[in-house]
Amino acid sequence: MISTLKRLFVGQPLATEQLAHERLPKRTALAVFSSDALSSTAYATEAILIALAVAGASAFWIATPIAVGIAILLITVAFSYSQTIKAYPQGGGTYIVARENLGTIPSLTAASALLIDYILTVAVSMSAGVAAITSAWPWLDPYRVELAVGLIGLVTLANLRGVKESGNMFAVPTYTFVASMMLLIGMGLYNIVTGQVVPAPPPETPHLPAEVGALSLFLILRAFAAGCTALTGIEAIADGVPAFKKPESRNAAITLAIMAALLVTMFLGITVLANAYHVIPDGSSEPETANSQLARAIFGAESPLYFLLQIATMAILVLASNTAFADFPRLAYFLASDRFLPRQFTQRGDRLVFSNGVILLGLVAAILVIAFNAREQSLLPLYAVGVFISFTISQVGMVQRWRRVKTPGWVRSALINGFGAVMTGMVMLILASTKFLEGAWAVIVLIPILVMVLLRIHRHYQDVAEQLSLVDAPRPRPVRRHTALVLVSGVHRGVIPALQYALSLAPDNVTAVYVDLDPVATEKIRGKWKEWGCGIPLVVLPSPYRSLLQPLLQYIDEVDAMYDDDVLTIILPEFVPSQWWQYMLHNQTGLQLKAALFFSRGKVVTSVPYHLEH
Amino acid sequence: MISTLKRLFVGQPLATEQLAHERLPKRTALAVFSSDALSSTAYATEAILIALAVAGASAFWIATPIAVGIAILLITVAFSYSQTIKAYPQGGGTYIVARENLGTIPSLTAASALLIDYILTVAVSMSAGVAAITSAWPWLDPYRVELAVGLIGLVTLANLRGVKESGNMFAVPTYTFVASMMLLIGMGLYNIVTGQVVPAPPPETPHLPAEVGALSLFLILRAFAAGCTALTGIEAIADGVPAFKKPESRNAAITLAIMAALLVTMFLGITVLANAYHVIPDGSSEPETANSQLARAIFGAESPLYFLLQIATMAILVLASNTAFADFPRLAYFLASDRFLPRQFTQRGDRLVFSNGVILLGLVAAILVIAFNAREQSLLPLYAVGVFISFTISQVGMVQRWRRVKTPGWVRSALINGFGAVMTGMVMLILASTKFLEGAWAVIVLIPILVMVLLRIHRHYQDVAEQLSLVDAPRPRPVRRHTALVLVSGVHRGVIPALQYALSLAPDNVTAVYVDLDPVATEKIRGKWKEWGCGIPLVVLPSPYRSLLQPLLQYIDEVDAMYDDDVLTIILPEFVPSQWWQYMLHNQTGLQLKAALFFSRGKVVTSVPYHLEH
Repeated sequence: MISTLKRLFVGQPLATEQLAHERLPKRTALAVFSSDALSSTAYATEAILIALAVAGASAFWIATPIAVGIAILLITVAFSYSQTIKAYPQGGGTYIVARENLGTIPSLTAASALLIDYILTVAVSMSAGVAAITSAWPWLDPYRVELAVGLIGLVTLANLRGVKESGNMFAVPTYTFVASMMLLIGMGLYNIVTGQVVPAPPPETPHLPAEVGALSLFLILRAFAAGCTALTGIEAIADGVPAFKKPESRNAAITLAIMAALLVTMFLGITVLANAYHVIPDGSSEPETANSQLARAIFGAESPLYFLLQIATMAILVLASNTAFADFPRLAYFLASDRFLPRQFTQRGDRLVFSNGVILLGLVAAILVIAFNAREQSLLPLYAVGVFISFTISQVGMVQRWRRVKTPGWVRSALINGFGAVMTGMVMLILASTKFLEGAWAVIVLIPILVMVLLRIHRHYQDVAEQLSLVDAPRPRPVRRHTALVLVSGVHRGVIPALQYALSLAPDNVTAVYVDLDPVATEKIRGKWKEWGCGIPLVVLPSPYRSLLQPLLQYIDEVDAMYDDDVLTIILPEFVPSQWWQYMLHNQTGLQLKAALFFSRGKVVTSVPYHLEH
Repeated sequence: MISTLKRLFVGQPLATEQLAHERLPKRTALAVFSSDALSSTAYATEAILIALAVAGASAFWIATPIAVGIAILLITVAFSYSQTIKAYPQGGGTYIVARENLGTIPSLTAASALLIDYILTVAVSMSAGVAAITSAWPWLDPYRVELAVGLIGLVTLANLRGVKESGNMFAVPTYTFVASMMLLIGMGLYNIVTGQVVPAPPPETPHLPAEVGALSLFLILRAFAAGCTALTGIEAIADGVPAFKKPESRNAAITLAIMAALLVTMFLGITVLANAYHVIPDGSSEPETANSQLARAIFGAESPLYFLLQIATMAILVLASNTAFADFPRLAYFLASDRFLPRQFTQRGDRLVFSNGVILLGLVAAILVIAFNAREQSLLPLYAVGVFISFTISQVGMVQRWRRVKTPGWVRSALINGFGAVMTGMVMLILASTKFLEGAWAVIVLIPILVMVLLRIHRHYQDVAEQLSLVDAPRPRPVRRHTALVLVSGVHRGVIPALQYALSLAPDNVTAVYVDLDPVATEKIRGKWKEWGCGIPLVVLPSPYRSLLQPLLQYIDEVDAMYDDDVLTIILPEFVPSQWWQYMLHNQTGLQLKAALFFSRGKVVTSVPYHLEH
C-alpha cells in the first residue's frame, strides 16, 4: 500500500542511465538561476524600513542612501563572482572553491553556513510568498502557516519526482515578475517626475515605536545589514556554470551581469519609491507587505496589475525556494562523498534525485516556518549572516587560488576578489554584530557545532575504513568448532526445525535453553522434551525476577567463555504470523534478544522461521 | 541510562515469591473499596442540576425527588450485589460471573464495558478532583489539564512501583472526606431546621439557557440518568471479597451495607441542601463546582473547613481513580489469560504489577482528559452507560447461576438479583436513550467493536495453538542439504568471518552475492575477490534502478526454487559500531533485508557480526 502511494506521488522509478544534463541558453539560464536573487526584492526594502522605524517615520528617507550603498556592494560582489566563473567553468560552488584553496576547516565552515542558508531560503521565501498573497487577500492570513507548509510539501514532492528543469517553468514566473516590477517602478518614477505622487495610505497599526529613539550610526548599520538580504542568491550562477551553453564561462558572466543590473534596478527602484510614496511598514498582527502597499498606491487597489504583481511575487519566491531544493541535496552529496555526512546522502532515489537531502530540507524548513509563524521578517536576521560568511570564504579562496595558479592577469583578478572579500567580510561583521540579539547568534553558534559534527562523522568513517582494510589482514581462518544454543519458549512444531538446524550445524554440541517463569509450565515442557527433544539436552534457567533476557544473556556469556576456538551460534525459532497485526499478539522477546545480542561480541545469531497459515 | 531512570522512578525489581496478599479488616476495606463509589457524590448532584437547567432554575426542586429515586435504585443494586458476595467468596467480578453463567459474548460485552469504564473512571475522577481544587483556588483553572494529566502520571507511576495497599493511605483521605461531608450536611440541615438558610450567591454566569424550555418527562429521565453516576463503583466490594478477613462473605456484605448507607446519606444530603440553598450550576468558562458553592455557603467562603473539604474531595477522587488502576490491569490479565487480549497483559513487571495494563490505562485516560479539557461534566454522559451495562449483565448472570445451582434459599436470591437486573436494565435503556446524543453513542458503538476485536484475537491464538500442536506431527526430519548465500557489500575484514562461517555450514554450496550499483566499484571488488574470496564464487547482480533489495530478493527466490530438499541460509556480514550514533552513519540495508526476508518463507537468516573498535 505504501509502495502504491509512493508510485502515485513520486512516480515510476527511473533507470540510472536516464540521468542526463540539459544545456541552457542565456535567457533560460537567467530565469533558472536568478529567481533566488531577484525575489529578495520582495522583502529587502521593507526590512530596511522596519530597522529604521526605531527612529520614527522621519528616519525612513535614509533608506535610499542605504540602498545605494547596498547596490554598490552588490555590484562589487557580482564582479568578484565573475572572476570565479572564469576560474571554475566546471562550477565554482563555495564548498568546492574553499576545499581546493583553503583546506578542510574553512570549507566545512562555508558548507555549514550554506546548509543553514538553504534551509532559511526555503523558510523565508515561502513565508514571503504567502505574505504577497495574504497582502492581496487578507482573509487568507489566518491560514498562512498552513499555506507555507503546504507549499513546502508540494515543492518537496515535486523535487522527489525530479523537476525537469524545463526553461518555461522558470521563465514565465520570473519574467512576469521582472516585467511587472519594472512597470511598477516605471509608473512610479513617471509620477514622481510629473509630480502626481499620491502617498500610500498609512496602515491602521503602523510598525512605529510609541517612543521614537535617536537615529544612531548603529541604527543605520543595522538598516544596512537588514537590506543586505537583497544579495542572497547572487552566487547561484557561479555554482551552475556547467549548465550554460558553450562558451560556458562567457555566457555565465554575461548572465551574471544582466542579473546584477536587474537586481540593482529593482531594489533601488522599490526603495526610492517606498520613500517617495511614504510607505510605512504595517505593524498589525496580519501585516501587508511594503511592496503590496506601494503597488496598491501606484497601480490602484483593485487594479488587475496589482494582483498580477502579487501572484508573480509569490511564484518567483516559490521558484527561489526550489533553487534551494536543488542546491541543498547537491551540497549534501558533495559532503557525503567526502565522508563528512552520512552516506545515505549520496544515494539517488527512484527518480534519480538525492531524495534524502530533499526530504531533510523540506522537513527542517517546515519546522522553521511553523516556529516563526510564517513571518519572513522575523526569519531575516538569521538569514543573511550565513550568506555573507560563505561569500567571504569564497572570495578569500579565490584570492588564494590566484596566488597559487598565477595565470595571466592573476593580479587583477586577485585584487577584485580581494576587494570583494574585504567588503563582504566587513558586512559579515556588521551583520553579526547588529543582528546578534535578533537571532544571528543562533547561526553563529550553530555553524561551529555543525563543523564539529561533520568532522566527527569524517573521523568515524576513516576509522571504519582503517579497521576494515585488508592490508596486512591475517589469512582467513576456517571455523574449528561450532557450539549451538537453541532458545526455546515451549515444545511445539515451531521449535522442531530449529532443533534440526542446530543438529546439522554442530551435531554433538547443541544445547536447548528454556527460562523457567512458571514451575507448572516448566514441568510440562520437561515431559514433552523426552519425546520431541531430538536427543538434545535441555537446560532450564531460573528467573526469580521474571525476566527472560537477563538469565539468557548470562548463560550465553557463560557458554561463550567455555571454549576459545569455537563459534557460538544462537538459534532462535521464530514463528511468523501471516498478518501484520498479529505481530502485536506475540511476545517481542525474539526482537529484544536480537537487539541485546547484537551488542555483545562475537555471537552469530540465526533465525529459523516457522510460518503460520492464517 | 534508561535503566537507571527506570530504577529511580519504578524501584528495584521484586522476586516472584514476594507476591503476597494482605487481609483487610472492615474499617480499612471500607476505605479501600468505597472511594470510587463515595467520591461520585462530588459531581452527581451537579449533573442532575445541569440536566434540569434546560427548564430553568424553577425546575431545580425536582432534583430532590429524583435523588430519592436514585437512592432507592442504589439500595436495590447494593442488595443485589450482596447476593453476589454470598455466591462468590473468591471474588465475583462481572466478567467472572458472566463467563461462568452466561457464556462468551455476554462476558466479553461486560468486559468491554468495564474496560471503557475504568478508563472513564480515571478521566472523570481526576478531572473532578482538579475541579474541586480550582473551585477553591480559581487562579489554578488555566492549568487544569496539566494538573489532571500530571496527577494521572503520578498515579500511573505509583502503580508501576506497586502501591502497597496500606490501610492508612486510603483510610485518612476517605474518612476525612466522609467526616467533612457529614459535617457539611449536618450543619446545612441544622440551618434548615432552625430557619437560618442564607442562599448561595448565584454564579456570575449561571448555567441557565437564554430561553427556558418546558419541563418534560424526557428531561426528568435525563436528569435521573445524569444522577445515576452516583452508583458508579458500587460493585467494587463484590469484586474484592477475598481481600476481607474471615469470614470474608459476611464481612464484605456488612461493609457493602455500610457503604451504601453512607453513599445514600451523602448523595441525598447534598441534593436536598443544593435545593435548599438554591445552588445554580456555574456556566462560566472556569466553573466552580456545585459542591464548592454549597460548602462556601454553609461553612463560609474563607473557612478552613471549606478548604479541608475541597482538598479531601480531591484526595478521595484521586483514590477513586487509583481503584481503576487496580481493576483495569486485573481485568486485562483475566482476558489475556483467556486469550482474548495480547499475552503481554499477563506478564508481571519488575514490581510484580501488570505494568502493561497500568501504562495503557494511564495513556488512554490522559488522552481523554486532554480531549475533554479536563471537564468531568462533559465526560459524564459517556461514563454511566457502560457501568449499567455491566451491572445488568452481572445481575442476569447471578439469576442464571441461582437457577443452575439451586442452593437452599436460591429462589429468594434469584428474585433479588432478578429485580436488580430489571431495574438496572431499565436504567441502562434510559441512560442510553437520554444521553445518546451527548456522547453515550460512542460507548454504544465502541463496545461491540471491542467485543469483535477480543474475539478476533482469541481466534488467532487458537489458530496458532492448533498449528503448533505436536498431536499427529510428523517425526523430525534432519536437514539433508545446506545452501548458503553470503550477501557482501564489499571486500573487507568484516566479510571474511561470514565467508568462513558459510564454508563451515555448506562446504561445497556457498555463493557470495553482490549488487552492482557502480561499475567502477564492482570492478575493484572483482579484483580483490580473487585474493580474499576463500574460493567462493561471486555473483554480481545488476540493478538498473539502484535498488539493493529488489535484485537480492529476486535472486534469493531463484536459488530457493532450485532444490526441494535443502535449507537455504542467508548470511549477512554486519559490522557493529561501538557507539549508538554511529549506526545512523551506515546504510540500514541489513535491517531492511532482515525485515523483508522475515516475511518470505522458509529462509534461515544468520548475522555474522564484526565488531568495530571505536
